[in-house]
Amino acid sequence: MSGETTLTIIGNLTDDPELREVNGQLVANFTVASTPRVFDRQSNQWKDGAALFLRCALWRDAADNVAQSLIRGSRVIVTGKLSQRSYENRQGEKRTVLELTVDEIGVSLKYAVAKPIKRSALTGARNGGQATAKNTAPRGSDDPFAEFQPEAEEA
Amino acid sequence: MSGETTLTIIGNLTDDPELREVNGQLVANFTVASTPRVFDRQSNQWKDGAALFLRCALWRDAADNVAQSLIRGSRVIVTGKLSQRSYENRQGEKRTVLELTVDEIGVSLKYAVAKPIKRSALTGARNGGQATAKNTAPRGSDDPFAEFQPEAEEA
Amino acid sequence: MSGETTLTIIGNLTDDPELREVNGQLVANFTVASTPRVFDRQSNQWKDGAALFLRCALWRDAADNVAQSLIRGSRVIVTGKLSQRSYENRQGEKRTVLELTVDEIGVSLKYAVAKPIKRSALTGARNGGQATAKNTAPRGSDDPFAEFQPEAEEA
Amino acid sequence: MSGETTLTIIGNLTDDPELREVNGQLVANFTVASTPRVFDRQSNQWKDGAALFLRCALWRDAADNVAQSLIRGSRVIVTGKLSQRSYENRQGEKRTVLELTVDEIGVSLKYAVAKPIKRSALTGARNGGQATAKNTAPRGSDDPFAEFQPEAEEA
Repeated sequence: MSGETTLTIIGNLTDDPELREVNGQLVANFTVASTPRVFDRQSNQWKDGAALFLRCALWRDAADNVAQSLIRGSRVIVTGKLSQRSYENRQGEKRTVLELTVDEIGVSLKYAVAKPIKRSALTGARNGGQATAKNTAPRGSDDPFAEFQPEAEEA
Repeated sequence: MSGETTLTIIGNLTDDPELREVNGQLVANFTVASTPRVFDRQSNQWKDGAALFLRCALWRDAADNVAQSLIRGSRVIVTGKLSQRSYENRQGEKRTVLELTVDEIGVSLKYAVAKPIKRSALTGARNGGQATAKNTAPRGSDDPFAEFQPEAEEA
Repeated sequence: MSGETTLTIIGNLTDDPELREVNGQLVANFTVASTPRVFDRQSNQWKDGAALFLRCALWRDAADNVAQSLIRGSRVIVTGKLSQRSYENRQGEKRTVLELTVDEIGVSLKYAVAKPIKRSALTGARNGGQATAKNTAPRGSDDPFAEFQPEAEEA
Repeated sequence: MSGETTLTIIGNLTDDPELREVNGQLVANFTVASTPRVFDRQSNQWKDGAALFLRCALWRDAADNVAQSLIRGSRVIVTGKLSQRSYENRQGEKRTVLELTVDEIGVSLKYAVAKPIKRSALTGARNGGQATAKNTAPRGSDDPFAEFQPEAEEA
């Protein structure tokens, strides 16, 4: 695609992510609440501005990663395309909402530590063996750049 | 500030983050390599484009979180202000480089799972007792929005 | 302010800008329609994607410049802060809309030529004399960087 | 393409744009100087921060529009992809620079009025007739949305 309207939003999940399957594809839905800070010259202090709530949709494998990693309140940084969706509500009225189709989401390191566990490592653990998913990236791996591969597939 | 040039970059760390103290402030330095994907009409396939390497600087507490969470190859999403720094090299020649002063960095969930551990929890664990830092956000906590607080301090 | 969600949208005005005065301040309102292009692999051609319509508000002097420069259909590039506004409709139902508080707007040069006339020059022309607002920036001026001044005032 | 690092920069041209032809394609090169504003708590005033200078390249028809519209000092809003270019200087040393490949550029309306003249109208005027390129978009045209067409061609 070309000419989309993209944005980056930083904030907290208002609830646990919802994971569903739509037409055989995984999708995670969640809402990010972003609260800007405003400098109040009178009190000479920063205070909260009005929050922005943005509904997000994330497709495919990453959706599962989000569901396994994040909960209500988690602070995230999200980038994606702003899009518009129309629907009819129960009263038959047309409504239009703006949503974010997520390209990439990350766990914020502003107030937290978060060590990535590669999906392939997790899958191995699941499929059997005694290996439990280690909560460390494979620092001692023979291939420290294994994660350095660009995506294999895209839209 | 007002009128800065901001950007979001997604890519992989080219090396482990370097953590230093400058004038009593922690700073983490690292380089993000971002590789766009190009659609080749002839082969009808996506392939790697030319990589972009961007030097980043992240200040204060978050710097320590980055050092504890990320290693060479980790995939991240980073947002910040583009700025320009001039220096003299050993030959006395003036050089100018563009760098990113990081506002926020996140561990990408595109190919990995990463559960945030709140810094306060970590500190508690360190300060004592047998409690080990649990690799889960405090899902069962009485205060699921504890992390929902906007920053207490800013520049 | 700090921590806002900013974005850049490129598109066409759906109507002439509306100029009003609110609490003694000028404000221009307009809607930008942005149409991404999607590559259709089957036909091997680019085609229009779904349009995004974003309501914009621009305050103070620039509002007047917009009203004097743009009309329905004009192609623009707009950057600003995404914000959320709630109101009650006539049926007393609460509605929430996303809007863009514009930081800067430009006349796109993709398909058009547009020569800037500095506001001060225009004012001079208005205030009198025979001088008509020349449709050229002051190339021959003694001070080619006159426009290079950063803003004198800001929020 | 997918996964590029994009940004929007607002500032002033440091010089008139340079228009060249490379491999039969028009390209305009120019540098944008962007000066953020910093709030100084001591003096309780805004003042200039350090400027960022970013080299830009704009290809094809729009390059000609830029050359006809802008001069040194013109204030613009520019969006594009950040990319990295390596070259050898005269001493045979390798140098790397960051540049912006422009997707869209607009004449800022912050301090100026600028009425777009559609390229097609200009061409008509050039090709003859008595019609001079009017400095107004075709407000009275039968087709006020003529400019509302998405691009016919893209990369």
